[in-house]
Amino acid sequence: MAEHDPERLHQKLREFAERFPLFRLLGVELVEFRPGYARTLLPLRDDLKNANGMMHGGIIATLIDITITQAMLMTDEYQRVRETRGSLTSVDLRVKYLRPLSSGHAVCEATIPHLGKRISHANAVVKSAEDKPLAFGDSTILITLGDAPAPK
Amino acid sequence: MAEHDPERLHQKLREFAERFPLFRLLGVELVEFRPGYARTLLPLRDDLKNANGMMHGGIIATLIDITITQAMLMTDEYQRVRETRGSLTSVDLRVKYLRPLSSGHAVCEATIPHLGKRISHANAVVKSAEDKPLAFGDSTILITLGDAPAPK
Amino acid sequence: MAEHDPERLHQKLREFAERFPLFRLLGVELVEFRPGYARTLLPLRDDLKNANGMMHGGIIATLIDITITQAMLMTDEYQRVRETRGSLTSVDLRVKYLRPLSSGHAVCEATIPHLGKRISHANAVVKSAEDKPLAFGDSTILITLGDAPAPK
Amino acid sequence: MAEHDPERLHQKLREFAERFPLFRLLGVELVEFRPGYARTLLPLRDDLKNANGMMHGGIIATLIDITITQAMLMTDEYQRVRETRGSLTSVDLRVKYLRPLSSGHAVCEATIPHLGKRISHANAVVKSAEDKPLAFGDSTILITLGDAPAPK
Repeated sequence: MAEHDPERLHQKLREFAERFPLFRLLGVELVEFRPGYARTLLPLRDDLKNANGMMHGGIIATLIDITITQAMLMTDEYQRVRETRGSLTSVDLRVKYLRPLSSGHAVCEATIPHLGKRISHANAVVKSAEDKPLAFGDSTILITLGDAPAPK
Repeated sequence: MAEHDPERLHQKLREFAERFPLFRLLGVELVEFRPGYARTLLPLRDDLKNANGMMHGGIIATLIDITITQAMLMTDEYQRVRETRGSLTSVDLRVKYLRPLSSGHAVCEATIPHLGKRISHANAVVKSAEDKPLAFGDSTILITLGDAPAPK
Repeated sequence: MAEHDPERLHQKLREFAERFPLFRLLGVELVEFRPGYARTLLPLRDDLKNANGMMHGGIIATLIDITITQAMLMTDEYQRVRETRGSLTSVDLRVKYLRPLSSGHAVCEATIPHLGKRISHANAVVKSAEDKPLAFGDSTILITLGDAPAPK
Repeated sequence: MAEHDPERLHQKLREFAERFPLFRLLGVELVEFRPGYARTLLPLRDDLKNANGMMHGGIIATLIDITITQAMLMTDEYQRVRETRGSLTSVDLRVKYLRPLSSGHAVCEATIPHLGKRISHANAVVKSAEDKPLAFGDSTILITLGDAPAPK
């Protein structure tokens, strides 16, 4: 089946991301992703700044949430969710802010240090173009398999 | 002094919010704010949705961050920060997702249950138009007074 | 059935708590509990202090975890877990430290602001004998029903 | 000066840990520590268990808090705190529970991925004797320098 072919799935997911309205609204670029890993990039613009002229904390949180989701999409666990028409739900999201970003762009990398059957834990780090850490993020994800029969 | 007059400060902050680029990008409306409390509203649009058609978790995080900041702006603690040219920094932001939002708008209310000299703790709750809780949020804020002499 | 009788269940749970080894090790007293609420008390002793002579942060975390569990035990959701031989799992625990405690005792109150079918969110506050807030706590709890047939 | 000699400081801190009442109450062993890193060990005993016979979540939180503190004690930042009679305060502590521990012992390792001037972020992982991850932990630490003159 097409969906089992990792290259085709990767290509479909990339095209989906390129057209995705929220990515276009904010300017998020999907740089790279594979099972359990994703890297995105977000150039700073005036309408993504807080009142101090730095990238807004909520926008950094959004970038982390987006990147963590992208790191989940190609895992085997998510493949099972897709096949059984189950769901993947963010239970929470946390961001620790280390340094502000005043210009250039933010790069976010997400990994999945714990992929459980029901609960997975994802981590993320956001860095500046100069590779300075700007924020750490983490998210707890609930995996619910659906009732649809698995494909043969 | 003008900045000490709460009504004028309130008016200035409201005008600032109405012109604020990120608020306009996302469509955030500032409904009400006073020292230690703020309420905002965000209508759901297609470009604020995740791949399941629900309001994106990062956008909910952004709404929480915005509302918590607004709840801090009229506190006496923030007035001291402003006078001494100090700074208010979000140390972290956390969101717990309870229910998805598929239509209508999200309302966010923020309060400040602990206003310390150096660390403050803010809480937020996001609800649907039907008053169903969608998310809980909290943030730790670091207050740093500046070196500028306090006005007489 | 005996387990359905709230008074008998309450009595059994109280006796269990009084004999519970960890409660005895630390000196935790169960003051009051009902569905969705619990209050405990912990006198400060030298072997519960950190190097600065204050109640240790880990001990405060333990008191919060204990009290949150106690607030879950009499809920209908937990009754279903018990009947079906399912499980209640802490996904996480978070503590925000506001003030140190140097003498007297800590009182902890826990509530359950969101009781979902799969995920519940609990909150706690720890105060001094003088009613000063010492810490805020929260925990995410995963509810898994078992396969045992429900009793008639 | 003696306090500047890392070997003597290490020896003093180890002796302090071995006599420390809370370590003795719970049975915490300090295995290894150096600037920015610490490893501890805690054998499971009946009075450290929850009602399901697993190591109590609060005890795991306590082990994480202890180990993170130990990883801070030999950093240069903490040396400055000590010299100026300042303070090191845990702003928060978070634990994510991955698996229960039913026998043997828990090993905790802490690192400090971000050592800022005012805020530091520490991480920890707890594993079983078989090296299975049991919990992830993190803590935000506020550094406040004191007014005492720095030694020459």
